[in-house]
Amino acid sequence: MSSSFDFKVTGRDAKARTGLISTPRGEIRTPAFMPVGTAATVKAMLPDSVRATGADILLGNTYHLMLRPTAERIARLGGLHKFMNWDRPILTDSGGFQVMSLAELRKLTERGVTFRSHIDGSKHELTPERSMEIQRLLGSDIVMCFDECPALPAPKDRVAESMALSMRWAQRSRDAFGDRPGHALFGIQQGGTERDLRAESAEALRGIGFDGYAVGGLAVGEGQKTMFEVLDYAPDMLPEDRPRYLMGVGKPDDIVGAVARGIDMMDCVLPSRSGRTGQVFTRHGALNIKNARHQDDPRPLDEACTCPACRSYSRAYLHHVFRAGEMISGMLLTWHNLHYFQELMQGMRDAIAAGRFARFRQDFAAARAQGDIDPL
Amino acid sequence: MSSSFDFKVTGRDAKARTGLISTPRGEIRTPAFMPVGTAATVKAMLPDSVRATGADILLGNTYHLMLRPTAERIARLGGLHKFMNWDRPILTDSGGFQVMSLAELRKLTERGVTFRSHIDGSKHELTPERSMEIQRLLGSDIVMCFDECPALPAPKDRVAESMALSMRWAQRSRDAFGDRPGHALFGIQQGGTERDLRAESAEALRGIGFDGYAVGGLAVGEGQKTMFEVLDYAPDMLPEDRPRYLMGVGKPDDIVGAVARGIDMMDCVLPSRSGRTGQVFTRHGALNIKNARHQDDPRPLDEACTCPACRSYSRAYLHHVFRAGEMISGMLLTWHNLHYFQELMQGMRDAIAAGRFARFRQDFAAARAQGDIDPL
Repeated sequence: MSSSFDFKVTGRDAKARTGLISTPRGEIRTPAFMPVGTAATVKAMLPDSVRATGADILLGNTYHLMLRPTAERIARLGGLHKFMNWDRPILTDSGGFQVMSLAELRKLTERGVTFRSHIDGSKHELTPERSMEIQRLLGSDIVMCFDECPALPAPKDRVAESMALSMRWAQRSRDAFGDRPGHALFGIQQGGTERDLRAESAEALRGIGFDGYAVGGLAVGEGQKTMFEVLDYAPDMLPEDRPRYLMGVGKPDDIVGAVARGIDMMDCVLPSRSGRTGQVFTRHGALNIKNARHQDDPRPLDEACTCPACRSYSRAYLHHVFRAGEMISGMLLTWHNLHYFQELMQGMRDAIAAGRFARFRQDFAAARAQGDIDPL
Repeated sequence: MSSSFDFKVTGRDAKARTGLISTPRGEIRTPAFMPVGTAATVKAMLPDSVRATGADILLGNTYHLMLRPTAERIARLGGLHKFMNWDRPILTDSGGFQVMSLAELRKLTERGVTFRSHIDGSKHELTPERSMEIQRLLGSDIVMCFDECPALPAPKDRVAESMALSMRWAQRSRDAFGDRPGHALFGIQQGGTERDLRAESAEALRGIGFDGYAVGGLAVGEGQKTMFEVLDYAPDMLPEDRPRYLMGVGKPDDIVGAVARGIDMMDCVLPSRSGRTGQVFTRHGALNIKNARHQDDPRPLDEACTCPACRSYSRAYLHHVFRAGEMISGMLLTWHNLHYFQELMQGMRDAIAAGRFARFRQDFAAARAQGDIDPL
């Protein structure tokens, strides 16, 4: 184990790269997919099972945890890792994105955001300083700057204004974070789909200096084509020797496309949320287990998958327990989806290391084209 | 593994006894508690986890499975064991009790019961013959006779009439079951709280001849005191060398009292249902995890328990995830409760084998008296 936060690029294939993030709580193989554990649990999974899928790191949500059970309570109980029984690295978001999408009566000022809890209506404030304090109380290994971003598409002046505010908040986050050996602070590039604003944002962040850099403000309604256009240049503006994290992405083909453009880390609720609603990801595309055509099907979700759902259960069983509203449905489908996402990451890491990532992408697209899929 | 169904009493301590049921699918240590897997899943648990708690056998519900996904579908898919990924013994009830408590527009005749599904309103019939056919299609290891019973208290003539009908159905069940090596058919004693009717029912069942005998028609509203009064004599009326199964029981103190009265097998939804509603069973009595007094408590549910919930999580965490409506709450609390019930059974088996069951009962009562419990 490393006593400090460190990142090494270990392999390259065109713009794609493999790497290793070292932290006192363990190593993170990149490209990495981080399952989301919003309220101190990856929904429908036990931590040992999450680890068994191959996850090196989880994401926790500052907004949810500050409201319930509160950061102060988690700190008194020994921190988020102990609280939720996950001793490996945790990245926490800053609360900035979720407060703007979930909270009620929110009011944005230079100082920060005041809002009312969506749970009980209680009044709260998030500022760069308070976000740093909450993430410290949680014991987060990778802390994110407090930022703000508009849904896309948005007028350029709105995007510019928001980016400038986020850069001032990035400086305040850096100042408030201080010096915490073994813990990392990541800056977040903003600028929407505007290349000059992305460059300006990257410049500002490099000036401040961070342990890693996120591409923020994407996957907010702009569509994959536009997102990839931004990813064709935005990651290149960030320091080459630091991890690059694309926030809130995504579907399997989003992930493959992002890695091809130089992204090292991603997170998304998709595999776990989809698992609970019966949507299943496979090499061949998506299945909808509630579709009646599965009710007599003795095959597993994917013959080649080694997850517990595929090893031991038929589509017919998974269809039945979904229809019956049984918890085992969400448990097995979430496990399968997380397993699939982690296997996808491992496949990409292996392909990049072997210099055959272009071939990997061709095979990935071909397997989906011959898909036994359900229209969603 | 035995190729036939067999039962041996291996130890006695007053009326309590230990035994071993052998079946082609594995052995069942008695006294045994059977977790309930109503719809082909023990709710909130994976089968490996159920086994890890110490369960040797599960119970499946004929009524639920015949409606969804249907017995015919399960048979086509290779039977209930394969369908639900549980290769050890399964006991199925006959559907008789549940059709009378759950179905709509039910009509009882000498022939059987017609009813409408509580799921989709479709029309169905259950008779002794159809119940035997369904349980055969499911591949049940221990099949229960189709019977009927009134809620208690009930007028004696109603209880007598119902018991007589159930005895005629017992004969029809026996005839329809036929000869199925390795599979057992259990008769069900009825007669409510009437000693003479219990004797008459036992006599009728012994005349027909079964592989095991259930005490039915209890735990239906009569209260523990009355139930124990019946159990003081009813099991003694059943063959000494065959397993005695008390259906639908119960709370931990019900179970201990039943074993003391010569019962070998029990089943109940209590540990799993309670787990989902935040009620926790411990040596010291019941805790209600949603109680606010647990929100800052760093202690496990029970310091002496070795289940995953107690090994790795605080009461504060379990309170948090219950309040947040997270699935891990039901998963961990169900696991704990099933673990507790199985540990209770193992404790009784050990005590009976060592001839110290009276002491076990004293210690059991004493631990509960000094309980750190929540009023429920």
